[in-house]
Amino acid sequence: MNILTQMNYSKRVGALRRRMGGLGATGLVITHLPDVRWLCGFTGSSAALAVTRRAVRLFTDGRYTAQAAEEVKTAKVEIVPSAPAVAAVQWLAVQVGETGTVGFDSAQTTVAELERWKTALPAKLRRKLLTPVKSAVEPLRWFKDEDELAIMAEAAKLGDDLFTHLLGFIQPGLAESAVAAELEYQARMRGAEGMSFESIVAAGARSALPHGRASEARLPRRGFLTLDFGVILKGYCSDMTRTVSLGKPTAREREVYEAVLEAQESAVAAVAAGAECGAVDEAARSVLRRAGMAEAFSHSTGHGVGIEIHEGPRIGARQKDKLAPGMVITIEPGVYFAGEFGVRIEDMVVVTREGGQVLTHSPKALIEL
Amino acid sequence: MNILTQMNYSKRVGALRRRMGGLGATGLVITHLPDVRWLCGFTGSSAALAVTRRAVRLFTDGRYTAQAAEEVKTAKVEIVPSAPAVAAVQWLAVQVGETGTVGFDSAQTTVAELERWKTALPAKLRRKLLTPVKSAVEPLRWFKDEDELAIMAEAAKLGDDLFTHLLGFIQPGLAESAVAAELEYQARMRGAEGMSFESIVAAGARSALPHGRASEARLPRRGFLTLDFGVILKGYCSDMTRTVSLGKPTAREREVYEAVLEAQESAVAAVAAGAECGAVDEAARSVLRRAGMAEAFSHSTGHGVGIEIHEGPRIGARQKDKLAPGMVITIEPGVYFAGEFGVRIEDMVVVTREGGQVLTHSPKALIEL
Repeated sequence: MNILTQMNYSKRVGALRRRMGGLGATGLVITHLPDVRWLCGFTGSSAALAVTRRAVRLFTDGRYTAQAAEEVKTAKVEIVPSAPAVAAVQWLAVQVGETGTVGFDSAQTTVAELERWKTALPAKLRRKLLTPVKSAVEPLRWFKDEDELAIMAEAAKLGDDLFTHLLGFIQPGLAESAVAAELEYQARMRGAEGMSFESIVAAGARSALPHGRASEARLPRRGFLTLDFGVILKGYCSDMTRTVSLGKPTAREREVYEAVLEAQESAVAAVAAGAECGAVDEAARSVLRRAGMAEAFSHSTGHGVGIEIHEGPRIGARQKDKLAPGMVITIEPGVYFAGEFGVRIEDMVVVTREGGQVLTHSPKALIEL
Repeated sequence: MNILTQMNYSKRVGALRRRMGGLGATGLVITHLPDVRWLCGFTGSSAALAVTRRAVRLFTDGRYTAQAAEEVKTAKVEIVPSAPAVAAVQWLAVQVGETGTVGFDSAQTTVAELERWKTALPAKLRRKLLTPVKSAVEPLRWFKDEDELAIMAEAAKLGDDLFTHLLGFIQPGLAESAVAAELEYQARMRGAEGMSFESIVAAGARSALPHGRASEARLPRRGFLTLDFGVILKGYCSDMTRTVSLGKPTAREREVYEAVLEAQESAVAAVAAGAECGAVDEAARSVLRRAGMAEAFSHSTGHGVGIEIHEGPRIGARQKDKLAPGMVITIEPGVYFAGEFGVRIEDMVVVTREGGQVLTHSPKALIEL
């Protein structure tokens, strides 16, 4: 845990406090674990963070006494016997006083959890203290600082290295699950804490499934193979997709591949500070529309990525959010012909003042294996 | 998908309908994906299931058209452009009519999601239609049917086989993460879809961390090594823990190990249809109390397991839930001495009319490697 990182935690809490003012909350309870981690560095599985204008306090349970002491330097740690979030809300109620309000993230708090918090408060505070705030922290996480960008570049590089390794490993007759096993083994051995989502290894007609998790099916001698995977490195996710050809592609396969590649490159080129997310999506979609493949492109062009594999902003049709420096997004158009084949190509891209900087460097020209 | 399994889906929906009567709901919207899977077999990542007294309908999006048709036989499938849960609520509103109520699971629905559903309804229905129901489906999932028990026995057996493999693989100097890599590689190659949680491989003083995820630390020549892992097989989780000794244990280590083993066996022996969960916890806890280790046993004795790694019932102090045939629970007492070492031993146990039937068969006498 270096000093720079600790400084970042203080900066992040500062950004959150400025946001709290606008949200009309004098305190905030944060229970979504990626938010907690981003704000104070704690990586345990049971925690709530309480933030006021003056104080930051992490509540966790006895299993994490040693770990919290090691990881958390910018918040006071309180070990509680159970239900850290209830303890955090009760503490906040005292801190903000009778005129204050405690914001909670309505997108991360269940109806039952909110009821539980209310029940734990004195009757007179129950009605007015807690106020819903939608996504209090997540939009702040869209903007990665230099430490985060360095880790994410490293995670993307590990993804590239793993793809290169797989090119030498893949052969007809292997089960998709054996490819996934090798991928995940190599990821672990090269320092990944795990995979950022269930690896997609989808060959032949299965490449037409946008979410074709590795199955027991064997790789055919001929056909497309889609590999979509990511690692978790130092808490941050990578995400990339390449589609390769087992054997020689047909003219139709090559035509579709080239259309998707053109769409993907067009969307990457559209990444710029100030660009609307919907315009980046349209840059990919218009290429596929002209190629007569609009219907087969059945999902959005991409999404933000960071501590979570899916963060904002969403790169989809008509999305009004504007890209800004420090955001890391995926660009991943794909087309799918059920029962036949599919193609998807995906890069991770950082938004900079000069445009999009691609983090994933694996080749995109069609590879024949 | 065999006929027996399809019959089970109908039985499960039947059990849910009987429960709905008692909950005062004429319709139910189910969004928690493990619940959806349990009720109709769908394994995609975007879905909502709507259940009325007469009909069952699965809402999902265009990415899952082919998959839903293949997996779901006992519910009508409707493909919607976005937000399956909103579509499900709107459909239910029509089905139950102006006098009906639609239950939603308050433990699985966020405050923001509920607002979104309300906004999508006609104004006159907004106030009265939706009614919170806590854990509508999960308690039904506590009871495993024969198909589920067969899969879970198979998953536990795979866990045992992996543990046996690791005994031949582990040696001083290996990184904990290399042990995890081998474990996860072998799991995949032997048919697991993935791991049921982040593998715990914690050696030496790290064995004193109850949640010591595999790190870059090297295995020492001497000291305890805790392995806590599970696979996902056909959608069901296994869970087991063994603590082994690298080199010869000290007298103190052996004493602690024997105490934990006695506590674990005492709790397993206490598993019986009709037994209170708190009594099973106490069977383990009282042994460790007598050994002067009550403080060091800092968590509950166990939990239910199934489609999710953590389900009910909770096997903790003073828990009043009663065990019943078909439940599958873990029994996993542990003691932890910060900076020194820890020991945990865990089995999966099925509750039967004749008592507890242990699914994990790996030896529990202290192994020296």
